[in-house]
Amino acid sequence: MARVRRVGEFELIARYFAPLAREFEGAGGLQSDNAFLPADARHDLVVKTDTIVAGVHFLADEQPGRVAAKALRVCLSDLAAGGSTPFVYQLSLALPTNWQEPWVAAFAKGLAADQRRFGIALCGGDTVVTPGPLTITITAFGRVARGKGVTRAGARAGDELWVSGTIGDGALGLLAAQGALPALTARQRAYLEDRYRRPQPRCTLGPLLPGIATAMADVSDGLLADSVHIADASRLAVSIERDDVPLSPGARAAVAADPRLWAKVLGGGDDYELVMAVPVRRRAALQAAAGSAGIRITRIGCFARGSGVAVTAGGRAIKAARKGYVHF
Amino acid sequence: MARVRRVGEFELIARYFAPLAREFEGAGGLQSDNAFLPADARHDLVVKTDTIVAGVHFLADEQPGRVAAKALRVCLSDLAAGGSTPFVYQLSLALPTNWQEPWVAAFAKGLAADQRRFGIALCGGDTVVTPGPLTITITAFGRVARGKGVTRAGARAGDELWVSGTIGDGALGLLAAQGALPALTARQRAYLEDRYRRPQPRCTLGPLLPGIATAMADVSDGLLADSVHIADASRLAVSIERDDVPLSPGARAAVAADPRLWAKVLGGGDDYELVMAVPVRRRAALQAAAGSAGIRITRIGCFARGSGVAVTAGGRAIKAARKGYVHF
Repeated sequence: MARVRRVGEFELIARYFAPLAREFEGAGGLQSDNAFLPADARHDLVVKTDTIVAGVHFLADEQPGRVAAKALRVCLSDLAAGGSTPFVYQLSLALPTNWQEPWVAAFAKGLAADQRRFGIALCGGDTVVTPGPLTITITAFGRVARGKGVTRAGARAGDELWVSGTIGDGALGLLAAQGALPALTARQRAYLEDRYRRPQPRCTLGPLLPGIATAMADVSDGLLADSVHIADASRLAVSIERDDVPLSPGARAAVAADPRLWAKVLGGGDDYELVMAVPVRRRAALQAAAGSAGIRITRIGCFARGSGVAVTAGGRAIKAARKGYVHF
Repeated sequence: MARVRRVGEFELIARYFAPLAREFEGAGGLQSDNAFLPADARHDLVVKTDTIVAGVHFLADEQPGRVAAKALRVCLSDLAAGGSTPFVYQLSLALPTNWQEPWVAAFAKGLAADQRRFGIALCGGDTVVTPGPLTITITAFGRVARGKGVTRAGARAGDELWVSGTIGDGALGLLAAQGALPALTARQRAYLEDRYRRPQPRCTLGPLLPGIATAMADVSDGLLADSVHIADASRLAVSIERDDVPLSPGARAAVAADPRLWAKVLGGGDDYELVMAVPVRRRAALQAAAGSAGIRITRIGCFARGSGVAVTAGGRAIKAARKGYVHF
């Protein structure tokens, strides 16, 4: 099929939807993924909506329990990036016309397992049938101390850029699931594939970071793109040292065998790690938080006056091949 | 296509999703459309999610501004039935692969018009592309005084059943849009069609009814079905006098020409009127509220101990042909 070049998701939002959010301050001009609403005297609600479509955002033949986990976790990852603890969610399920009850039963079982894991509950939603593919929309609600929610805007020049966990596993895991990456061991491929199929949102770390991170996002569009989102929203430039980016053994083996895969590592999405700006003076607090959450964190760059992204490898400037997963 | 008999939407919710909502009281066991979350010291948030699919819930060639209005208003109607004033909304837009920017521009213009009309703002969402039909999910938030939100449960034996506006226009309007109803004048058909295409949620009346209505729903599944939802959730029986059901001139002409259309009037959905239980002693308060909102209300039946629905016509029992729009 011929594809016409059209505006991308971010342009579409800026041009048509951000103006609709202008009058509600908690929307932050749609520059962050999350919206903030008053919750009670001491808390704000953090609200995030994500839609996933079979064959687009997950493999069309994925197990129902894993579809449930993916649908929930991509939202929970944003709530963590807002510094919030997940609370409840709304579920919209558009089932294909040939839906079968055992699929729904297994899907609900997957939701139940994640509800226990993350301490959340379903609070409402909608169920329809569509002539199109299975489509799931989750609106998830987290809670954060009043006024303490973290957004993409707020980084200051001199702040360091940190990430949780390892980067690139999501995009490489999709390749592994598609039968690519022959240079890897079966175990490495299985590890990466699991990272793609079962995101691990950083729900224990995120809520520890209000007061430490000045800006935060989750790595869903890709490390470069999500770092640039923080830089843009904070009106700063960001630089990243590629060789400091933390890789899993499988990802390290993949880029060693084929350095072109660095583009996937830095530009692919679906890692669901946290990327954040942290002032140098709060480094010890950050490390204590990460230690208490049991999650590895790595410093990979810094913010400075200016705009855009610069990537170095071993200190030498390289061209950033891809800015991230393009939704459209 | 052969369609296998499967469980319906309500059974699916009761069997698989209500158990997931058991631990969150504000979900009300998913028996009402709305969820209730604490908002601030004096308010609760009322939350509702609705998904509409092109060719299923609206005509596939509908004007983008009207699609926007429909997507928003079906949610606002539920918020009104919860007794709440609409506040903000999240929008998930799954665009078909052949989407065009002018469509999005016109859609956003429609949202903007309804934002002004109903005093609401966009607060976030998601935009994706789907190989399937245009699919829109709105999660809308209203506000109501703390603890005063109205649900489907709460009606008491002896309460009267009231409806706002006129009933049956939605289902008959879809027939008119499809070129049916030849017995009607062009003006009557246009009126009904507009009622189908542009729901008028009762956002001025609903927020006046906490403290007056003991239970409330909007007429989206059909008058009988939605009355039964209230009766079931309140563990009561409901009786309806068909000849008291308020009809528009077009609907009256339609059932006069073809009495079989009563099944559509009572069983079709998409009216987006309010149906409510009101104690006899609050009748004057109800009439004052309706007068102040400028919306007609009509008493059409009552609740009693027992279960199920009984329909009479001129006082004689008739068989209720259809319990409502079947989503699946």
